[in-house]
Amino acid sequence: MRDVYVLGIGITSFSRLEYPIVEIAAYSSVVALKDAGLNRVDHVFVANMGAARVNHQTALASALVDHLNLMPCGAETIENGPASGASAIKTGWMAVASGLHDTVMVTGVERMREVNNLEATDFVASLTHPYAEQIYGVTLPAMAGMFARLYMETYGVTSRHLAMVAIKNHDNAMLNRFAHLHEKISMEGILDSNDAMTNNPFVADPLRFYDLCPVSDGGATLILGTAEMAKKIGKPLIRLAGVGQATDTHCVHERANPTDLLAVRGAAGKAMEMAGVKPGEISVAELHDAFTILEIAESEEVGFFKKGEGHIALEEGYTELGGKLPINTSGGLKAKGHPVGATGVGQAHEIVTQLRGDAGERQVKNASKGLTVNFGGFGNNVVSLVFVRE
Amino acid sequence: MRDVYVLGIGITSFSRLEYPIVEIAAYSSVVALKDAGLNRVDHVFVANMGAARVNHQTALASALVDHLNLMPCGAETIENGPASGASAIKTGWMAVASGLHDTVMVTGVERMREVNNLEATDFVASLTHPYAEQIYGVTLPAMAGMFARLYMETYGVTSRHLAMVAIKNHDNAMLNRFAHLHEKISMEGILDSNDAMTNNPFVADPLRFYDLCPVSDGGATLILGTAEMAKKIGKPLIRLAGVGQATDTHCVHERANPTDLLAVRGAAGKAMEMAGVKPGEISVAELHDAFTILEIAESEEVGFFKKGEGHIALEEGYTELGGKLPINTSGGLKAKGHPVGATGVGQAHEIVTQLRGDAGERQVKNASKGLTVNFGGFGNNVVSLVFVRE
Repeated sequence: MRDVYVLGIGITSFSRLEYPIVEIAAYSSVVALKDAGLNRVDHVFVANMGAARVNHQTALASALVDHLNLMPCGAETIENGPASGASAIKTGWMAVASGLHDTVMVTGVERMREVNNLEATDFVASLTHPYAEQIYGVTLPAMAGMFARLYMETYGVTSRHLAMVAIKNHDNAMLNRFAHLHEKISMEGILDSNDAMTNNPFVADPLRFYDLCPVSDGGATLILGTAEMAKKIGKPLIRLAGVGQATDTHCVHERANPTDLLAVRGAAGKAMEMAGVKPGEISVAELHDAFTILEIAESEEVGFFKKGEGHIALEEGYTELGGKLPINTSGGLKAKGHPVGATGVGQAHEIVTQLRGDAGERQVKNASKGLTVNFGGFGNNVVSLVFVRE
Repeated sequence: MRDVYVLGIGITSFSRLEYPIVEIAAYSSVVALKDAGLNRVDHVFVANMGAARVNHQTALASALVDHLNLMPCGAETIENGPASGASAIKTGWMAVASGLHDTVMVTGVERMREVNNLEATDFVASLTHPYAEQIYGVTLPAMAGMFARLYMETYGVTSRHLAMVAIKNHDNAMLNRFAHLHEKISMEGILDSNDAMTNNPFVADPLRFYDLCPVSDGGATLILGTAEMAKKIGKPLIRLAGVGQATDTHCVHERANPTDLLAVRGAAGKAMEMAGVKPGEISVAELHDAFTILEIAESEEVGFFKKGEGHIALEEGYTELGGKLPINTSGGLKAKGHPVGATGVGQAHEIVTQLRGDAGERQVKNASKGLTVNFGGFGNNVVSLVFVRE
């Protein structure tokens, strides 16, 4: 098994992008190739969830290879719902680790705003269980609402804690030019003022508008390769040191304790074990905050905090920029955006940027070890990655 | 890099299957698990092209893991158009070869007949180039028609040769209980009789009805693992000895010589090189005959025959059951059927069945080395596999 390193990274703005999906993918790919100083790779993996449905486009990986004139390099699309991005990175890891390829480009992409929000919500709901969930009309926000309510009742989390996640991540996004939302929000504006109900209406009680991520378009790319390649490039050596994945019951209601996210615990545990890193050693993390409650829950499941204490760490500023363990310095899905297939690659992009020391105003000091959690389904298939600066 | 072996195989009938797609996938998976004597695997890869569009189902891999109660095993869906199946097998190979997993289940599945033939054709056309092909309304049969016409003009292939492929593969399918079409056809019935135009009308001149594969539902599974695991199981040792992939221009009209299938040549060449096998040593091959002309063209590109001489070998019975190098003993896509995501895995299922000596009436004598070609796009992304009996 060979070690695997990050050779290059690239990203587009996460926002509404009026380009064909293959061009969005091509953009972040070209940025990453330039970053790595390469004009060829041995293989391409594309992470995408919805092009077949939303963009009437299949075989997107072949289209990207052609668009970038990378023939005869092979390519596939990897889909694992909202965790497609990290799944594709893990697959890229396998390609290099196995010795089959020396350089692999992993590009995550989604163009969700080609359809309206209702269709986008329906599209995302296609990841739910076909006859135990989907046919009853349950959507992801509905699941997250039920999950949040149970979490609040069990652990004393309040709406203010949820809002704190949103405010922190919107603050971070102000420092990230690739983020979808550049909008500073405050407790006053979204919870405490007379017009809070207008500014921040309920979407799925107890979740309100600012508890949900936006529907975004975007692309992000990571180029992986061997140690030899990485040393040639002359950038800080960032190793993809751990890849972990775990599944849980497809249906949330079948879990013994529905506030437990066992797949998060399993995936992050495996990734850290493989990397030989403990939760307390992580400098910076990108957690999958499609809904604010998830950042709190995941911060506990990965082992940063005890179960039920994530919201206390949040209150104490532990996870903000300048805190002991900054979470979602990019703005997270909440404010950076959530172009589904690109999300997991975008998380890795942020961690690599931090470990390289290139994060500018949002730089975490002495960042040396970073973790991502990319959350598929409603926690039924989770992929976690650990990056280490050498 | 560790050697990778086949531990188990399973398949459903390829036909119209009135079950939810996840149950079709589960069926072949359970058959393969039973064949391998396993009730757990370390990871699952699902090959599928159209569930998001045709079945309103994404995250199919997670649904399958849940359906089979394989949690917490990780899973992804791999899509590479009609070559999704072999792409997923290649990815499974990487997972075992890299040392990340010891046992991997690869299940290809498609349920295309949930929509009508017009919608199925439109769905498959979504793999064409978005603004150089798709918007002009070109479909795969249209491309194959143009390709066939050029091939006939260049190499002297006639409609009778195309019909010979169909007749041979229908004959083979009569001996395969999993095949979609159990219908013996003859030159008299489809070309020479007064009612041939009624029996066998033009679809995309020069291709007629019997030159095209049917639209099928189906699932197929391969379980891969280490040598140690394979030896425990006590079946003939079948090694996945070569995995090759290559791309070509997405658009057929951009190829210097549109009758060349460079990606077939590249993929099969790499797979055989990796396996240390020459074309002349192959005992049995499954080639991607979605259109009859493709079997002829691919049999040349993989190196079995000189360019332009495939139809002569066919005429001489070289590729029929009992010939020197039987091609598509399963019936091929032409008569076994083409449930897109399952096709490449189904090809591998046939080769393993042959190498194990389990093919019954269609058994190729002393079969020891088998090759598959799984053709994505119109030859823009091709994956080839070589299996060797040890």
